[in-house]
Amino acid sequence: MILEVAILNVRSPMESEFEAAFTKASAIIASIRGYISHELHRCIEVPNRYLLLVRWQTLEDHTTGFRRSPEYDQWKQLLHHFYDPFPTVEHFEGVLQYQDNSTQNAEPRVKNLQ
Amino acid sequence: MILEVAILNVRSPMESEFEAAFTKASAIIASIRGYISHELHRCIEVPNRYLLLVRWQTLEDHTTGFRRSPEYDQWKQLLHHFYDPFPTVEHFEGVLQYQDNSTQNAEPRVKNLQ
Repeated sequence: MILEVAILNVRSPMESEFEAAFTKASAIIASIRGYISHELHRCIEVPNRYLLLVRWQTLEDHTTGFRRSPEYDQWKQLLHHFYDPFPTVEHFEGVLQYQDNSTQNAEPRVKNLQ
Repeated sequence: MILEVAILNVRSPMESEFEAAFTKASAIIASIRGYISHELHRCIEVPNRYLLLVRWQTLEDHTTGFRRSPEYDQWKQLLHHFYDPFPTVEHFEGVLQYQDNSTQNAEPRVKNLQ
Protein backbone atom coordinates (compact mmCIF):
# COMPACT_ATOMS: atom_id res chain seq x y z
CA MET A 1 0.00 0.00 0.00
CA ILE A 2 1.26 3.44 -1.01
CA LEU A 3 0.02 6.70 0.50
CA GLU A 4 -0.11 9.68 -1.86
CA VAL A 5 0.09 12.95 0.09
CA ALA A 6 -0.63 16.47 -1.18
CA ILE A 7 -1.04 19.75 0.66
CA LEU A 8 -3.51 21.76 -1.40
CA ASN A 9 -3.56 25.56 -1.03
CA VAL A 10 -6.86 26.74 -2.51
CA ARG A 11 -7.44 30.28 -3.84
CA SER A 12 -9.55 32.09 -1.27
CA PRO A 13 -12.58 32.55 -1.17
CA MET A 14 -13.12 29.51 -3.45
CA GLU A 15 -13.10 26.95 -0.61
CA SER A 16 -16.80 25.95 -0.86
CA GLU A 17 -16.61 25.71 -4.63
CA PHE A 18 -13.45 23.60 -4.32
CA GLU A 19 -15.08 21.23 -1.83
CA ALA A 20 -18.08 20.75 -4.15
CA ALA A 21 -15.80 20.09 -7.14
CA PHE A 22 -13.70 17.72 -5.07
CA THR A 23 -16.76 15.70 -4.08
CA LYS A 24 -17.61 15.35 -7.77
CA ALA A 25 -14.01 14.47 -8.66
CA SER A 26 -13.92 11.75 -6.02
CA ALA A 27 -15.83 9.35 -8.23
CA ILE A 28 -13.22 9.83 -10.97
CA ILE A 29 -10.17 8.86 -8.91
CA ALA A 30 -12.13 6.02 -7.25
CA SER A 31 -12.72 4.41 -10.66
CA ILE A 32 -8.98 3.92 -11.35
CA ARG A 33 -7.34 0.49 -11.14
CA GLY A 34 -5.31 0.15 -7.92
CA TYR A 35 -7.21 2.88 -6.04
CA ILE A 36 -8.04 1.93 -2.44
CA SER A 37 -9.41 5.04 -0.67
CA HIS A 38 -8.94 8.76 -0.18
CA GLU A 39 -9.62 11.46 2.40
CA LEU A 40 -9.77 15.24 2.20
CA HIS A 41 -9.10 17.27 5.38
CA ARG A 42 -9.22 21.04 5.95
CA CYS A 43 -6.56 22.87 7.97
CA ILE A 44 -7.63 24.60 11.18
CA GLU A 45 -4.69 27.03 11.31
CA VAL A 46 -4.78 27.96 7.57
CA PRO A 47 -8.41 27.65 6.42
CA ASN A 48 -7.72 27.62 2.66
CA ARG A 49 -5.28 24.72 3.07
CA TYR A 50 -6.33 21.09 2.59
CA LEU A 51 -4.64 17.73 2.99
CA LEU A 52 -5.34 15.01 0.44
CA LEU A 53 -4.44 11.43 1.32
CA VAL A 54 -4.94 8.75 -1.34
CA ARG A 55 -4.17 5.09 -0.78
CA TRP A 56 -3.04 3.08 -3.84
CA GLN A 57 -2.06 -0.55 -4.22
CA THR A 58 1.23 0.41 -5.95
CA LEU A 59 3.16 3.60 -6.78
CA GLU A 60 2.61 3.03 -10.49
CA ASP A 61 -1.16 2.83 -10.04
CA HIS A 62 -0.93 6.56 -9.30
CA THR A 63 2.07 7.80 -11.27
CA THR A 64 1.36 5.92 -14.48
CA GLY A 65 -2.10 4.38 -14.22
CA PHE A 66 -3.96 7.48 -13.10
CA ARG A 67 -1.82 10.31 -14.47
CA ARG A 68 -1.75 8.89 -17.98
CA SER A 69 -5.45 7.99 -18.06
CA PRO A 70 -8.25 9.89 -19.83
CA GLU A 71 -9.88 10.24 -16.39
CA TYR A 72 -6.93 12.38 -15.26
CA ASP A 73 -7.93 15.04 -17.81
CA GLN A 74 -11.37 15.28 -16.17
CA TRP A 75 -9.76 15.42 -12.70
CA LYS A 76 -7.45 18.26 -13.78
CA GLN A 77 -10.29 20.17 -15.39
CA LEU A 78 -12.38 19.97 -12.22
CA LEU A 79 -9.64 20.78 -9.71
CA HIS A 80 -6.36 22.24 -10.92
CA HIS A 81 -7.54 25.86 -11.30
CA PHE A 82 -8.23 26.05 -7.54
CA TYR A 83 -4.59 25.58 -6.51
CA ASP A 84 -2.08 28.33 -5.81
CA PRO A 85 0.72 27.35 -5.78
CA PHE A 86 0.36 24.11 -7.70
CA PRO A 87 0.88 21.30 -5.14
CA THR A 88 3.85 19.01 -4.78
CA VAL A 89 2.77 15.40 -4.42
CA GLU A 90 4.82 12.85 -2.49
CA HIS A 91 4.37 9.14 -1.85
CA PHE A 92 4.88 7.30 1.41
CA GLU A 93 5.18 3.73 2.64
CA GLY A 94 3.84 2.66 6.02
CA VAL A 95 6.30 2.24 8.90
CA LEU A 96 3.87 1.70 11.76
CA GLN A 97 0.33 2.27 12.91
CA TYR A 98 -0.92 2.29 16.46
CA GLN A 99 -4.38 2.47 17.98
CA ASP A 100 -6.00 3.21 21.29
CA ASN A 101 -6.72 -0.01 23.13
CA SER A 102 -9.43 1.69 25.20
CA THR A 103 -7.48 0.63 28.25
CA GLN A 104 -4.13 2.06 29.17
CA ASN A 105 -2.96 -1.19 30.72
CA ALA A 106 -3.34 -3.26 27.57
CA GLU A 107 -0.36 -4.41 25.53
CA PRO A 108 0.67 -1.89 22.88
CA ARG A 109 -0.18 -2.99 19.37
CA VAL A 110 2.52 -1.86 16.99
CA LYS A 111 2.05 -3.29 13.56
CA ASN A 112 4.12 -3.06 10.39
CA LEU A 113 2.07 -1.86 7.46
CA GLN A 114 4.48 -3.26 4.91
CA MET B 1 -12.03 14.00 15.30
CA ILE B 2 -8.94 16.11 14.65
CA LEU B 3 -6.00 15.02 12.50
CA GLU B 4 -2.57 16.24 13.60
CA VAL B 5 -0.15 16.30 10.66
CA ALA B 6 3.63 16.71 10.76
CA ILE B 7 6.27 16.25 8.07
CA LEU B 8 9.37 15.03 9.89
CA ASN B 9 12.77 15.50 8.25
CA VAL B 10 15.18 13.20 10.06
CA ARG B 11 18.97 13.73 10.18
CA SER B 12 20.53 11.20 7.83
CA PRO B 13 21.76 8.46 8.41
CA MET B 14 19.73 8.24 11.65
CA GLU B 15 16.60 6.82 10.00
CA SER B 16 16.76 3.34 11.59
CA GLU B 17 17.51 4.78 15.00
CA PHE B 18 14.62 7.22 14.60
CA GLU B 19 12.20 4.43 13.66
CA ALA B 20 13.23 2.41 16.72
CA ALA B 21 12.81 5.44 19.00
CA PHE B 22 9.48 6.25 17.40
CA THR B 23 8.20 2.73 18.06
CA LYS B 24 9.12 3.17 21.71
CA ALA B 25 7.56 6.66 21.84
CA SER B 26 4.30 5.35 20.39
CA ALA B 27 3.24 3.95 23.75
CA ILE B 28 3.70 7.40 25.32
CA ILE B 29 1.40 9.30 22.97
CA ALA B 30 -1.13 6.45 23.03
CA SER B 31 -1.50 6.82 26.80
CA ILE B 32 -2.80 10.41 26.55
CA ARG B 33 -6.47 11.24 27.10
CA GLY B 34 -8.24 11.93 23.79
CA TYR B 35 -5.71 10.00 21.69
CA ILE B 36 -7.34 7.81 19.02
CA SER B 37 -4.59 6.47 16.73
CA HIS B 38 -1.42 7.36 14.85
CA GLU B 39 0.53 6.30 11.79
CA LEU B 40 4.11 6.89 10.67
CA HIS B 41 4.93 6.73 6.96
CA ARG B 42 8.26 7.06 5.15
CA CYS B 43 8.64 9.12 1.97
CA ILE B 44 9.66 7.31 -1.22
CA GLU B 45 11.06 10.39 -3.00
CA VAL B 46 12.95 11.79 0.05
CA PRO B 47 14.00 8.79 2.18
CA ASN B 48 14.81 10.75 5.37
CA ARG B 49 11.35 12.35 5.35
CA TYR B 50 8.43 10.91 7.34
CA LEU B 51 4.75 11.76 7.69
CA LEU B 52 3.16 11.54 11.12
CA LEU B 53 -0.64 11.44 11.34
CA VAL B 54 -2.23 11.45 14.79
CA ARG B 55 -5.97 11.34 15.36
CA TRP B 56 -7.28 13.09 18.49
CA GLN B 57 -10.79 13.51 19.82
CA THR B 58 -10.35 17.31 20.14
CA LEU B 59 -7.73 19.91 19.23
CA GLU B 60 -7.09 20.62 22.93
CA ASP B 61 -6.33 16.95 23.61
CA HIS B 62 -3.17 17.56 21.59
CA THR B 63 -2.31 21.23 22.09
CA THR B 64 -2.96 21.37 25.82
CA GLY B 65 -3.49 17.84 27.09
CA PHE B 66 -0.43 16.26 25.50
CA ARG B 67 1.95 19.20 25.13
CA ARG B 68 1.59 20.24 28.78
CA SER B 69 1.82 16.71 30.17
CA PRO B 70 4.83 15.10 31.86
CA GLU B 71 4.65 12.45 29.11
CA TYR B 72 5.51 15.13 26.54
CA ASP B 73 8.93 15.56 28.14
CA GLN B 74 9.66 11.86 27.56
CA TRP B 75 8.38 12.15 23.96
CA LYS B 76 10.65 15.14 23.30
CA GLN B 77 13.64 13.42 24.85
CA LEU B 78 13.15 10.35 22.66
CA LEU B 79 12.46 12.14 19.37
CA HIS B 80 13.23 15.83 19.03
CA HIS B 81 16.99 15.49 18.43
CA PHE B 82 16.31 13.57 15.20
CA TYR B 83 14.60 16.49 13.43
CA ASP B 84 16.24 19.02 11.15
CA PRO B 85 14.55 21.42 10.69
CA PHE B 86 12.18 21.21 13.64
CA PRO B 87 8.77 20.30 12.19
CA THR B 88 5.72 22.51 11.86
CA VAL B 89 2.61 20.78 13.11
CA GLU B 90 -0.85 21.55 11.71
CA HIS B 91 -4.30 20.26 12.56
CA PHE B 92 -7.05 19.27 10.14
CA GLU B 93 -10.76 18.50 10.21
CA GLY B 94 -12.30 15.89 7.93
CA VAL B 95 -14.16 17.07 4.82
CA LEU B 96 -14.77 13.75 3.10
CA GLN B 97 -13.58 10.19 2.87
CA TYR B 98 -14.19 7.81 0.01
CA GLN B 99 -13.49 4.10 -0.43
CA ASP B 100 -13.28 1.60 -3.24
CA ASN B 101 -16.58 -0.22 -3.60
CA SER B 102 -14.89 -3.15 -5.32
CA THR B 103 -17.28 -2.56 -8.20
CA GLN B 104 -17.15 0.48 -10.39
CA ASN B 105 -20.89 0.48 -10.95
CA ALA B 106 -21.80 0.84 -7.30
CA GLU B 107 -23.07 4.11 -5.85
CA PRO B 108 -20.26 6.37 -4.66
CA ARG B 109 -20.06 6.59 -0.89
CA VAL B 110 -19.07 10.10 0.07
CA LYS B 111 -19.32 10.62 3.79
CA ASN B 112 -18.83 13.67 5.94
CA LEU B 113 -16.35 13.03 8.71
CA GLN B 114 -17.59 15.96 10.80
